[in-house]
Amino acid sequence: MNNQQAMKTVVLQAGRLQLQSAALPQPGPGQVLLRSLACGICGSDLHILKHSGEVFALYRELGLMSAEQDDRTPLALGHEFCGEIVSYGPQTEKPLAVGSRVTSVPMLLSQQGAGIGVTPGLGGAYSEYFVIDEALMLAVPEQLPAEAAALTEPLAVGLHAVNRSAIGSDDIALVVGCGPIGLATLVALQRRGVQQIVAADLNSEKLQLAQQFGATAVVNPRQQDEIQYACATAPGKRLVIFECVGIHTLIDGFIRRAPAHSTLVVTGVHTTPSSVNYAYATVKELDLRFSYYYQPQEFAECLQALADGEIPWQKMLSAKVGIDGVPQAFAALQQPNDYIKVVIEPWRDGPLQPVSL
Amino acid sequence: MNNQQAMKTVVLQAGRLQLQSAALPQPGPGQVLLRSLACGICGSDLHILKHSGEVFALYRELGLMSAEQDDRTPLALGHEFCGEIVSYGPQTEKPLAVGSRVTSVPMLLSQQGAGIGVTPGLGGAYSEYFVIDEALMLAVPEQLPAEAAALTEPLAVGLHAVNRSAIGSDDIALVVGCGPIGLATLVALQRRGVQQIVAADLNSEKLQLAQQFGATAVVNPRQQDEIQYACATAPGKRLVIFECVGIHTLIDGFIRRAPAHSTLVVTGVHTTPSSVNYAYATVKELDLRFSYYYQPQEFAECLQALADGEIPWQKMLSAKVGIDGVPQAFAALQQPNDYIKVVIEPWRDGPLQPVSL
Repeated sequence: MNNQQAMKTVVLQAGRLQLQSAALPQPGPGQVLLRSLACGICGSDLHILKHSGEVFALYRELGLMSAEQDDRTPLALGHEFCGEIVSYGPQTEKPLAVGSRVTSVPMLLSQQGAGIGVTPGLGGAYSEYFVIDEALMLAVPEQLPAEAAALTEPLAVGLHAVNRSAIGSDDIALVVGCGPIGLATLVALQRRGVQQIVAADLNSEKLQLAQQFGATAVVNPRQQDEIQYACATAPGKRLVIFECVGIHTLIDGFIRRAPAHSTLVVTGVHTTPSSVNYAYATVKELDLRFSYYYQPQEFAECLQALADGEIPWQKMLSAKVGIDGVPQAFAALQQPNDYIKVVIEPWRDGPLQPVSL
Repeated sequence: MNNQQAMKTVVLQAGRLQLQSAALPQPGPGQVLLRSLACGICGSDLHILKHSGEVFALYRELGLMSAEQDDRTPLALGHEFCGEIVSYGPQTEKPLAVGSRVTSVPMLLSQQGAGIGVTPGLGGAYSEYFVIDEALMLAVPEQLPAEAAALTEPLAVGLHAVNRSAIGSDDIALVVGCGPIGLATLVALQRRGVQQIVAADLNSEKLQLAQQFGATAVVNPRQQDEIQYACATAPGKRLVIFECVGIHTLIDGFIRRAPAHSTLVVTGVHTTPSSVNYAYATVKELDLRFSYYYQPQEFAECLQALADGEIPWQKMLSAKVGIDGVPQAFAALQQPNDYIKVVIEPWRDGPLQPVSL
């Protein structure tokens, strides 16, 4: 392969998602160049596109964007990936052969807090090629398709939320939102041995799916109060609510309606200021735990569970799209829809196509 | 004593604090009639007076006020008290002689969640006489003055906040606000063996006092960022912030400025809706724990610590006032002031008088 080569990449620039041509990245010391085989579209990717001003303001405050960078700086998306090793950079140990399929926590150790596919300047897997750290690279077991390995990341988000909650097997879990993160949370709760797992969603198909991921009861919040319903499944037990919708205005309502001594785990990234009346949290002694960074061992645990056939990942996969179809796919995903996970195959062209279950 | 007798009482009615005459309360089954010897003025009493509309709206939502009750219903204040047993109601075991000095968690078991001196209809200790539950009654050791026993309640609030935080001896505690709750939190942290205890306040006299209650370092947030200062005392250690100011707009700032993996314990009662950007809590995986209801054993532990001379309670006591001086004392306390705790002696008249240390 010729490193002078250009590649196709999907970037966010000037508030728009654009298919562009870019120079092939070069793996630096300790890094590995991958060819992207599959990359999931995450709710946070949609959020960055819609609220890029807020997200960039936050990045600046957190030191993840320099003064020179702004919304004209291309942001390469894609952090839920499976790739194939193309070449190793200097100072690498090359534990796997070129051509091996791998995945990784989407982070470069040299850039603390900055993530592959989410912060400007790092590259992402909505591209034909991108770079990861060898130290974080995990081999994808042979029996696991690339699109399944790309689900490791959202599964790790759910597992981490459950670990952050410190939920006991005797507590009631209420998972609000049955998209990929909600389903990942459900499966992690089931694997942890939680007995009462209630799933809430406005979409009845997603509620059916929730039952296949471990929900022991389901509720449509349009039909009844999901918190009251969950509490009634095991009266007197402690409630742990998992916010897996990503709509910040829901949080104040959970705080108002949660019973005393509940825990609320927030998994969505909410960059819009919200109004909250803390008095309800105080008089009920609520715990609010915010969950974001899964640990490498949680990521590895999810990859292993996928490889062991313990997670019905096929049911999460709604559609696939080629690299040239990504901007249109985003337009479709920004409307209300029934998709769970859409996976990009950056090595081919093609429009959004449902995957038959 | 004649039960037809009238007594003096200080109530909140129609948005104003008023000295009134009321019928002597009658102890019901399981209850004990006390003569109030000493009762602390709590920040929440000041808050109820200033924000009674918000507080009553919250009470209504929580079922602590009936439809018939409104701001014209007298609310008898006073929940930090020491009293003397006057008589027992029916169905009591009378473990202590009439005339014994006692205190209690300010709650009537028959009224779940409703507190003596904070919810309408229950009576309070800003009165010559009031009623408690025998089951919650604790004898005040002989060597402990009544005004010291009245400090048991705020000390229990601080101890409970520390217990809720689950702080380790190796973590950094930052106590923001060195009023009675802040000082109570400091002393509980010291007793728990926490090594790094940083106190923050705008008032240098309160910071001096904080050092006598266990602060190992002090900082004035007007002079430097209290969070950065606290973190620098033990770099790399986990930070636990205790909000003991009671100003809800501070919370968003703590969330923005706290380092990753911090815990924020909120002890103030904040009934005004606030704006918050949860993104900062998410990307830093903060824990927000709201602290309110101490447990009877925490209350008893504080009374014992006072009796054992382990808490320099004299330094918390700034002033005393007789029952007729209470409305004027409130007016003084609603202005910026240097008082820590003001104790009412409802059995006498008299204006607010500083206590010399």
